[in-house]
Amino acid sequence: MPNAAVLACDWGTTNLRTWTLDAGGEVLASRDFELGVSRLQPGEAAARFQSEVRPAMEALALPAVLCGMIGSNLGWTVAPYLDCPVSLQDLARGLVTPPSAEGWARLAPGVRGEGLDGASDVMRGEETQLFGWLALNPDRARGRHVVCHPGTHAKWMVVEDGRLTHFITAMTGELFAVLRKHSVLKSDAAPDDAAAFAEGLAAAGDGGALAARLFTARARVVGRGKAAETTPSYLSGLLIGAEAASVPKLLGVEPGTKVAVLGDIGLCALYSQALQAQGLACETFDGEAAAVAGLFALYRKATGQ
Amino acid sequence: MPNAAVLACDWGTTNLRTWTLDAGGEVLASRDFELGVSRLQPGEAAARFQSEVRPAMEALALPAVLCGMIGSNLGWTVAPYLDCPVSLQDLARGLVTPPSAEGWARLAPGVRGEGLDGASDVMRGEETQLFGWLALNPDRARGRHVVCHPGTHAKWMVVEDGRLTHFITAMTGELFAVLRKHSVLKSDAAPDDAAAFAEGLAAAGDGGALAARLFTARARVVGRGKAAETTPSYLSGLLIGAEAASVPKLLGVEPGTKVAVLGDIGLCALYSQALQAQGLACETFDGEAAAVAGLFALYRKATGQ
Repeated sequence: MPNAAVLACDWGTTNLRTWTLDAGGEVLASRDFELGVSRLQPGEAAARFQSEVRPAMEALALPAVLCGMIGSNLGWTVAPYLDCPVSLQDLARGLVTPPSAEGWARLAPGVRGEGLDGASDVMRGEETQLFGWLALNPDRARGRHVVCHPGTHAKWMVVEDGRLTHFITAMTGELFAVLRKHSVLKSDAAPDDAAAFAEGLAAAGDGGALAARLFTARARVVGRGKAAETTPSYLSGLLIGAEAASVPKLLGVEPGTKVAVLGDIGLCALYSQALQAQGLACETFDGEAAAVAGLFALYRKATGQ
Repeated sequence: MPNAAVLACDWGTTNLRTWTLDAGGEVLASRDFELGVSRLQPGEAAARFQSEVRPAMEALALPAVLCGMIGSNLGWTVAPYLDCPVSLQDLARGLVTPPSAEGWARLAPGVRGEGLDGASDVMRGEETQLFGWLALNPDRARGRHVVCHPGTHAKWMVVEDGRLTHFITAMTGELFAVLRKHSVLKSDAAPDDAAAFAEGLAAAGDGGALAARLFTARARVVGRGKAAETTPSYLSGLLIGAEAASVPKLLGVEPGTKVAVLGDIGLCALYSQALQAQGLACETFDGEAAAVAGLFALYRKATGQ
């Protein structure tokens, strides 16, 4: 592909997203592969990347920069965790080239921090989106900012003067998935009922006693005759609402603070609704653009550009 | 069977427990059937009870009294919910005889109450154990008592002067089951590591921000090198600890209060440890004995004995 300079990859547990970028970081082509790290046999990451991904992206001659679970012990080569606080420069210095890649591939490290009540916390991939977001929003280079990245494992990140200093993970998305699929609350209905979502938000209260609040999703159907098809929407509102009511407080976020919500735009909208209900202001940002910008920023740092 | 007077049944979602009782309520025989309500085809409860359960218990000539999900719309015949407050007398008046049983079977109603923050809450089966516990402990007939019944859906019940006035359900057991089996925290290891259970109890904190606390179960393995086999024990401690830290407060239980923990003795011991860590005193009571006593008490009330 003319002008192609680097293959940028966000290689997560369930999916691999790739972008061919030019020397200015513009996207020339993109593609998703159903080749999440959880689907890889041990040791086959390099071979499958070489035989499937690079050819499909016409990127056999391009260097690659990758973030996400591909840098874990389940992926290609371990890119060890960096401990908070972490800057973009630190992340670039922590890039790891797998021996099998002969210099053309670089894997971003994950980040480890002191999370809730001094417990350990970890991330792989969101740090790259965070630094991409900073690159796209240079007015946030100074000061303290709180960034929420919703998803299977939502990340709440604190950035201070351009460094990731602290973060907390909430398993909200995974709770939603397993309860919706495997529990007494299971339902195939789409979570698209705005009224039931709002009802769930209200039922989240202060976010405490979650195991008890969850049962209200059952009791409203069995005891109050609400339609079972509204359960997924109610459950979504309840879980996102409980996170919005509790996690910002753990980070010392004061009412009126502006939170940056970064990720899938549809999910960001639900989080914004929940956070606004808690008296927090929100701005939403596209996670894909941030991933591209972060990977490109790492590539530039690594190659001294 | 000589002296047999009544077949008492606790017919729940996953299991059917039966006891043949004599005229004084003593257990002559008992048996569990893998015939939970969730395994019944619509409409077949009566036929399977007649063709499998009564013959196996040599109880073809005996009356039967049943509690649990068998009285729900998924069971035999609906025994409608009674609204709190509910006494043993109310429960006996609410017994329903299915048309197909020709008078020999009686199904206990469930109970509905105003649970968390005014939301609806429901139970089927635990109310019968509660009144059995009261029958076995006549010193609790007066005053206010708090009874915790741990399980898939833990019930926290308030009894005042012999009437069930208020209760809250916590889905703690179900959360444990689905997370252990279907989430990133999944593990086949037995939850029998006392140190990891205690570690989880401590990590439960005030029980808030549960989605975030749950991720500490992952991060302690990935980020701190704890053995993955200890995850089920840690998760058990975290979930039971979060319930113990939050639900009693919702019921206005003051530190130092004595809580009755009623149910499976092994599970009651874990709950006692969690509640004691919250400054609450505990007494544990066997749930099976309470179920038998409650079913027998209903039978006696219904037959005017």
